[in-house]
Amino acid sequence: MTLQLTMQSKELSSEELSILQQMRVRCTKNILLSTSLAGSGHPGGSLSTLDNLLVTYGCIKHDPDNPSMEDRDRIIMSIGHVSPGVYSTLSEYGYFNEDAFLTGFRRTGSGFPGHVERIVPGVEWDTGNLGQGLSTAVGLAHGFKIQNRPNQVIVFMGDGEQQKGQIIEAIRFASKYKLDNLIVVVDRNHLQICGTTEEVMPQSIRSLYSMNNWDVNYLEDGHDRNAYFQTFSRAYLKNDGVPTVIVSRTTMGKGISFMENIAKYHGSTLDRSLLSKAMQELGVEDEFDKWNGLRQDPVSTETIQEYVAPKLEIGTGTPIVYEAGTMLDNRSAYGNALLGLAEENNANGDLKIAGISCDLEGSVKMGGFHKHSPKAYIEAGIQEHHAASMAGGLSSLGLVTFFSTFGAFAVSEVYNQNRLNDFNHAGVKVVATHVGLDVGEDGPTHQCIDYLGLFRNYYRSSVFIPADPNQTDRIVRYIATVPGNVFVGMGRSKMPMITKEDGSLFFDADYTFKPGKADWLRTGDDATIITFGAVVPAVMEAWEMLKKDGHSVAVLNMASLVPLDSAAVLKAADSGVILTVEDHHVETGLGSMVATVLAEAARAIRFKRAGVSHYGGSGKPSELYVSQGLDADSIAAKVKSMLS
Amino acid sequence: MTLQLTMQSKELSSEELSILQQMRVRCTKNILLSTSLAGSGHPGGSLSTLDNLLVTYGCIKHDPDNPSMEDRDRIIMSIGHVSPGVYSTLSEYGYFNEDAFLTGFRRTGSGFPGHVERIVPGVEWDTGNLGQGLSTAVGLAHGFKIQNRPNQVIVFMGDGEQQKGQIIEAIRFASKYKLDNLIVVVDRNHLQICGTTEEVMPQSIRSLYSMNNWDVNYLEDGHDRNAYFQTFSRAYLKNDGVPTVIVSRTTMGKGISFMENIAKYHGSTLDRSLLSKAMQELGVEDEFDKWNGLRQDPVSTETIQEYVAPKLEIGTGTPIVYEAGTMLDNRSAYGNALLGLAEENNANGDLKIAGISCDLEGSVKMGGFHKHSPKAYIEAGIQEHHAASMAGGLSSLGLVTFFSTFGAFAVSEVYNQNRLNDFNHAGVKVVATHVGLDVGEDGPTHQCIDYLGLFRNYYRSSVFIPADPNQTDRIVRYIATVPGNVFVGMGRSKMPMITKEDGSLFFDADYTFKPGKADWLRTGDDATIITFGAVVPAVMEAWEMLKKDGHSVAVLNMASLVPLDSAAVLKAADSGVILTVEDHHVETGLGSMVATVLAEAARAIRFKRAGVSHYGGSGKPSELYVSQGLDADSIAAKVKSMLS
Repeated sequence: MTLQLTMQSKELSSEELSILQQMRVRCTKNILLSTSLAGSGHPGGSLSTLDNLLVTYGCIKHDPDNPSMEDRDRIIMSIGHVSPGVYSTLSEYGYFNEDAFLTGFRRTGSGFPGHVERIVPGVEWDTGNLGQGLSTAVGLAHGFKIQNRPNQVIVFMGDGEQQKGQIIEAIRFASKYKLDNLIVVVDRNHLQICGTTEEVMPQSIRSLYSMNNWDVNYLEDGHDRNAYFQTFSRAYLKNDGVPTVIVSRTTMGKGISFMENIAKYHGSTLDRSLLSKAMQELGVEDEFDKWNGLRQDPVSTETIQEYVAPKLEIGTGTPIVYEAGTMLDNRSAYGNALLGLAEENNANGDLKIAGISCDLEGSVKMGGFHKHSPKAYIEAGIQEHHAASMAGGLSSLGLVTFFSTFGAFAVSEVYNQNRLNDFNHAGVKVVATHVGLDVGEDGPTHQCIDYLGLFRNYYRSSVFIPADPNQTDRIVRYIATVPGNVFVGMGRSKMPMITKEDGSLFFDADYTFKPGKADWLRTGDDATIITFGAVVPAVMEAWEMLKKDGHSVAVLNMASLVPLDSAAVLKAADSGVILTVEDHHVETGLGSMVATVLAEAARAIRFKRAGVSHYGGSGKPSELYVSQGLDADSIAAKVKSMLS
Repeated sequence: MTLQLTMQSKELSSEELSILQQMRVRCTKNILLSTSLAGSGHPGGSLSTLDNLLVTYGCIKHDPDNPSMEDRDRIIMSIGHVSPGVYSTLSEYGYFNEDAFLTGFRRTGSGFPGHVERIVPGVEWDTGNLGQGLSTAVGLAHGFKIQNRPNQVIVFMGDGEQQKGQIIEAIRFASKYKLDNLIVVVDRNHLQICGTTEEVMPQSIRSLYSMNNWDVNYLEDGHDRNAYFQTFSRAYLKNDGVPTVIVSRTTMGKGISFMENIAKYHGSTLDRSLLSKAMQELGVEDEFDKWNGLRQDPVSTETIQEYVAPKLEIGTGTPIVYEAGTMLDNRSAYGNALLGLAEENNANGDLKIAGISCDLEGSVKMGGFHKHSPKAYIEAGIQEHHAASMAGGLSSLGLVTFFSTFGAFAVSEVYNQNRLNDFNHAGVKVVATHVGLDVGEDGPTHQCIDYLGLFRNYYRSSVFIPADPNQTDRIVRYIATVPGNVFVGMGRSKMPMITKEDGSLFFDADYTFKPGKADWLRTGDDATIITFGAVVPAVMEAWEMLKKDGHSVAVLNMASLVPLDSAAVLKAADSGVILTVEDHHVETGLGSMVATVLAEAARAIRFKRAGVSHYGGSGKPSELYVSQGLDADSIAAKVKSMLS
């Protein structure tokens, strides 16, 4: 039987309070036991936030027997380190037995990691890096609004954490979009690792929210479960377009006299004798030896919750075929395809495609989408960190979420936000315009030349870079149909359509994009140029020059970079000469990926890499390419020198 | 003759006002001309911030004939896109002739790029990404305080820019550290690219500063040069421990009737006929054709200001030698070396070494340094974005600046901040503890396995990863003596000292660290293991096993990863078998670097990579290594299978 509190009640009954008190004792025991058993972890914050956690789970809509129940509320633990508090609470509410938690906590391969992860039944989001949880929660809350669903989102945060700048971005956004289905609980214990929050970095937390017009509540005693219940239930039930924060004044280490208000218990555990002392104070048995014995057994994986991708039913609409001989920027092709997806899928108020941008709607060509699906278009302001994390939350509701801005802001600026989305198997389609030297005159800060270098550090994201507007169209429609995070990058300039030797379209009406499959734009025996993206036209020009000079050169277009078509690389190696050409940092992009395939296959061939070898300047893209040896003449000359 | 205003004056004289008005007309002309000539750029914001820029340069201490004069004040343009406003102002103040600017603006190879860069005389910092400039300015201002210098720092920001979360981090910091030598000017024109700031992302800018106890000034007419002068000079002259912000209500496109308050002129230029119209309004000649003609000449590089690194005179102190057979964590060796550097260089109030951390002083072992040099130790709170950018500013004053926190926060979280430091030839020594699976139980969010994968995307940063505490000691002392950004990463756990075969120390009292030079820990003929960092002890164990089995294997330690010792890799290739072993993402680290060397040299050998091939779990480092095949047994088995 799990506790279910009635939010319409004026106050908690004495019976409910007594049940909560018993829960608190057991959880306190388990928080201390688990961390002492593991020899690491975060008992202090777990104890300070525990009372609020326990009451919250009593209030919200959730089902331990069906943790993925469609109409459940969501709890995001932005303070992922209070995992012992979360796991002990979830165990009280029937998600799993305490045995699983106590024997598994912080053991390799177990279902109970040091920071909360979705493998734990009841946990909605992997966290650990402070500052991102609110944005993810905002994404969920706004997603529910877009989908006209009544679900609520509660996010637990620390007080030290409020120092992170991303938080005020999320606060502003929640206010702008009137997210009254969002409740933030700040565990205000005034302590962080290096001392009091006032010593480390003074700030008024309540002002942070009130200046952005939130409903700000302060609980003088955050451990008063009835007071918290009253505040929480009022926030939960109200419907006024205003998000709520509950600043809950708590005590680090609450409940164990010698731990209270001691900063070191943020991340220090009790040794054997202090644990005994704590158990005595609690009036419970000291079970350390029992559990320590059980922890010698192999780790159990029984509770581990497998990730299941949300089911998408997305129609791709009718592909647009841009004619040979025309010029268009890939951005416009993206905008057109996105509009096509909206027309196909966002009908009758049932919205399946969402789009986020950061004060660059026109540049990233989201205008058509915005006009068609105003409710599904989200203007996040110049707040990319928030936008990226929010996109993760939004996408986890099964909304296909396109996040578009310039490459430097969609990739370089938010590397760690995209990383957390990758952990979480989110489904964000990061479609960045303005990547590479093709950005031109705006210069090096705006030239994203590290999109591959960065996205290759994730394990679960794909990277696709189209070679022309036709391929852009097909890639954009394709990615809307598959779960998972995807990066698609494109330059700024207009490009010709890639054609076959006979002048007909290469990516024609019959073309479909397949991840992990490269395109042989040209075949040839003497050498192969492997390339992608904005420099493909220059490579094609070089190919013409080389052909005129009697060289038979193949051109391999790697639109799918992650996953890479290694078989095609090995086939290219048969030509004996490979030159990679990319509008990307020469050390961290395609060149190094091809090199790895060659080295591991022990293929000794003539191999060279052409790419961006120093920061780009501010000038016309065509001139910038010349300055880095990425124009047609330079490419042809490089191949020739490799053939001689 | 350049204008020099007297800040003690009550108001500007009519003569001064008249000079400023003439300057404004010429600058307006040049802003419009330069952007129309280039066909791109940002005229609107340039015109709105121009009056404040012109008065500011009249007030501050600077010398156009000696732009790097020691006691100059610093202006940081956080809004790097208003470059035409800056260049035209600098030209008025004698830094260069307008000819250079008008013929060069936004041309490849010229000295006048689209976003401001230090190659322009008078520009202090490359900017372009919004949100970072205030932090850099704070670094400069705090650096002047540390150095007891009277210089002041002025930073120009946009109003849309105030949405970036990093800004409130910097605001808080400036308040905590009482930076009354800092003046922020916010160009409050209420317009950003996609509309009014109120439409895009509503906020009260003044509250952002006032809630953090800044001296907040609002100018109802920001174009009133006398009012700005009075406010600015009061802020400049005061000495009350309070930083100042001047929110200056301006008009986008100010001065040209049809451009005023039109958002598109943020990033759109005037076409030929509108330019003519604007020139008429200004009452000046339309010089488009003249300059357009001159722009057909080859670009001039005459004004380009070469970067000169600040001169460092740092003593390395006496190296600490940790004895063979002892165990220590590299973190402690770092802390000890840093203290040694402080003792050697931070004497008698003359501070040369600074240290920044983010609520992790104890974990990163900065306690000794803090105690020795309290004024040079900087607690930035949980505000890594700000801290990283601030470190760049601080270091540019010639303070050797150590920035230490966990790898996930020093690298993954602040990739774009470190990137801007790289642009700027800053001198930040990012020493990250807690990198790799060696982090253990805190799990994947805290395991930084991308430090190489990220730092390899810069062009001007070095990466060094020590193999034991002795090498840590020498590397830390070395990096303090050289300019430029350096990353040094280390794990969390205690490690044995690396020894030679005879049991004596490998990195002994005679060892000195050399960038680009690998260490042959063991020599051998059958195979080579190339490795670095926390897994070196496991590799050494594997070497023992292999030796017992009769295999002659070499071990090459790559403490210097950027630059890489390619010659050593090629020598290793002579053994015919190379296995790379790293506590890093297997796709983006040492393995791919070695592969590139092999592929480009066409060396067909048996080559394999061992590294982190999926997100790490939460458990003991030793177990996590087993789970990824990075323990001694697995390494030995891999080598054996390659030899068979």
